[in-house]
Amino acid sequence: MSVTPAQGGITAPEGYLAAGIACGIKASGLDLALLVTQRPATAAALFTTNRAAAAPVQLSRRHLGATGGHARAIVTNSGCANACTGAAGDAAARTMAERTAAALGCRPEEVLVASTGVIGVALDPATVSAGISAAAAALDRGNADLAARAIMTTDPWPKSHAVEVTTLQGRFRVGGMAKGSGMIEPNLATMLAYLTTDAEVSPTALRLALAEVCDDTFNAITVDGECSTNDAVFVLANGASGVRIDGRAEREALVGGLRAVARELALGIVRGGEGATKLVTVRVAGAASREDARVAARAIANSLLVKTAVHGGDPNWGRLVAVAGRCGAAFELSRARVAIGEVDLFAGGQPHDDRAAAAAAVLRGPEVAITVNLGTGGPHGATVWTCDLSAEYVRINAEYRT
Amino acid sequence: MSVTPAQGGITAPEGYLAAGIACGIKASGLDLALLVTQRPATAAALFTTNRAAAAPVQLSRRHLGATGGHARAIVTNSGCANACTGAAGDAAARTMAERTAAALGCRPEEVLVASTGVIGVALDPATVSAGISAAAAALDRGNADLAARAIMTTDPWPKSHAVEVTTLQGRFRVGGMAKGSGMIEPNLATMLAYLTTDAEVSPTALRLALAEVCDDTFNAITVDGECSTNDAVFVLANGASGVRIDGRAEREALVGGLRAVARELALGIVRGGEGATKLVTVRVAGAASREDARVAARAIANSLLVKTAVHGGDPNWGRLVAVAGRCGAAFELSRARVAIGEVDLFAGGQPHDDRAAAAAAVLRGPEVAITVNLGTGGPHGATVWTCDLSAEYVRINAEYRT
Repeated sequence: MSVTPAQGGITAPEGYLAAGIACGIKASGLDLALLVTQRPATAAALFTTNRAAAAPVQLSRRHLGATGGHARAIVTNSGCANACTGAAGDAAARTMAERTAAALGCRPEEVLVASTGVIGVALDPATVSAGISAAAAALDRGNADLAARAIMTTDPWPKSHAVEVTTLQGRFRVGGMAKGSGMIEPNLATMLAYLTTDAEVSPTALRLALAEVCDDTFNAITVDGECSTNDAVFVLANGASGVRIDGRAEREALVGGLRAVARELALGIVRGGEGATKLVTVRVAGAASREDARVAARAIANSLLVKTAVHGGDPNWGRLVAVAGRCGAAFELSRARVAIGEVDLFAGGQPHDDRAAAAAAVLRGPEVAITVNLGTGGPHGATVWTCDLSAEYVRINAEYRT
Repeated sequence: MSVTPAQGGITAPEGYLAAGIACGIKASGLDLALLVTQRPATAAALFTTNRAAAAPVQLSRRHLGATGGHARAIVTNSGCANACTGAAGDAAARTMAERTAAALGCRPEEVLVASTGVIGVALDPATVSAGISAAAAALDRGNADLAARAIMTTDPWPKSHAVEVTTLQGRFRVGGMAKGSGMIEPNLATMLAYLTTDAEVSPTALRLALAEVCDDTFNAITVDGECSTNDAVFVLANGASGVRIDGRAEREALVGGLRAVARELALGIVRGGEGATKLVTVRVAGAASREDARVAARAIANSLLVKTAVHGGDPNWGRLVAVAGRCGAAFELSRARVAIGEVDLFAGGQPHDDRAAAAAAVLRGPEVAITVNLGTGGPHGATVWTCDLSAEYVRINAEYRT
């Protein structure tokens, strides 16, 4: 099995078309994306665990249940989350599915729906319906970049990736696109992300592969510790490549391809986090349990004091120890270790501040690895990706609606 | 029982002396505070739950155990946390207790020690010893303000308060001082705070009263969700007023007096939070359990998106619903309610954005109340105080050591 980068983003696999158009939901810019498979496809998704799940999330969950894991299209609007919008919001989400189904000649249950933007603002059914008609008319395999742009809110750039997977059976492709870039926290689905493949996969196998892949990609990133009302990760598999996923080797190839695309998209979301200037990889080792490792990695990755220290280029390892000590995970100070890059700053209960200059040099780079060993002697570890916290994050979020 | 404000801060009760001096731990400014009771006093304290507890925390905990809850003095340095400093740090904390005991003529076990500042930097025993000698020579009842200033790190102003409590038995006073102002999160003790009283209280009664009072004061505030390695709340009771706390009414009077001072100090810490411009009171109601109410209130109070929206004066109630929905507490969207001040912005599953201007007016004030009803119909509630998140917080914490 080999996985190599490919061109084409979300429509890199055979048999997918996309559109990204502007229909007036946002004051300006692209705000409606349509992704269509030309052949019937199996489908799976992971949705936000937020108990205030938005209308499109509830509708998509129902549709996947009704079809037993099949879909023909995913329609997404940006500029309005259609969350906390009551019965009118439910109706607007249904309208999106119905109009898309009518335009494509499929059943409404075969359409998945996603929305992103401000919570609590009504989504005008006429506006989004006109947009869907325009998008259906514009569908083309060459529109992957337009679609990736149309799902953006505060994202600084579109996130798109594709790979080709070569197996003994033949070749298939995986494509993807995603948007961030605030309200990002590992908790099942964590943003809007879309994966496509032209492998042939049963609904059950697709669901299992998606869960496995999200675990160490979309679920292992955090920008600000928030899990939104609208988060979703979708995957479609239309079988156009002729490669059928049925044996263990093929399942591994599928997971490998999906993971390669998902990881690139997930890291892209962190790199493009609101106000982010650095990608930070937080590795926790020496944990007494897998759960402890994850708790500690997430606590460190979400700590304002850690994120501001990284932003300021300050090798303040004391904050890392403080967070590890307070996060609830088993922690043994006398055997704990903290490193920034390859520079050990604290070990055996002793600071090594003579190495601060070397660590500060690491922090000046665009990518920073932080390693914290909890000192319990346990074998468990975890990795979480995050970004630094800048004054720009505050500015973006203090002024988001104003 | 009546509780009325009094002058005099930490030395307002009879029989307490204080000093605040500069001894060179900080590059400039006051950095050593000494608080002494002229009569033997009972003592109690709550310490950080951080598993990387600093040397002075570990020492003070041992001393309180050794004396069975008695103390003569509390010595505090700012400018160095003496945390993660290994055996040398343990020795430095012991030196602080021994030098203070020698200067006052008491046993080292009767001295409690606290430190605050940068983690992982060695505390020079000679410097702090010279400071203790100078502070002992400067002890005076009129030094409450100097002591309150000497415990500060990034605090914008000293926090000091006192009350007089009148009971059927007579009058006693409660005094206090505290410092913030980052690494503040409700988790047992949450900063350095000192309470004194001239009531006569047994060690057990004092411990119980402190725990009760901290529960809805120092444990109900958050600036940035961090619980530091050095947090401690101390209380001394020296009996100089002649009022003995033995019956139920007297216990209530003691708690009332302690709470009045503790609340003022706790809110002062939030008002003086790093970069804070507003005091935010987060009230959660309609929770299915007390724990759910607290979880939700803390999640809202620590949410970057909520704190930045408040900073920007944006009545973005959708973020409040999103946090309530993702925090893990039972939540029923269709019956949830969100208000900013007295302005209901979301109720019965419906936004009321026509009221946004009224809510924005509330947000322009220096004190903002946010109320979220989780909609479960449960009777439980909780209150947490926090501040807004400004670019100034980022600046302070990105540049703390540099």
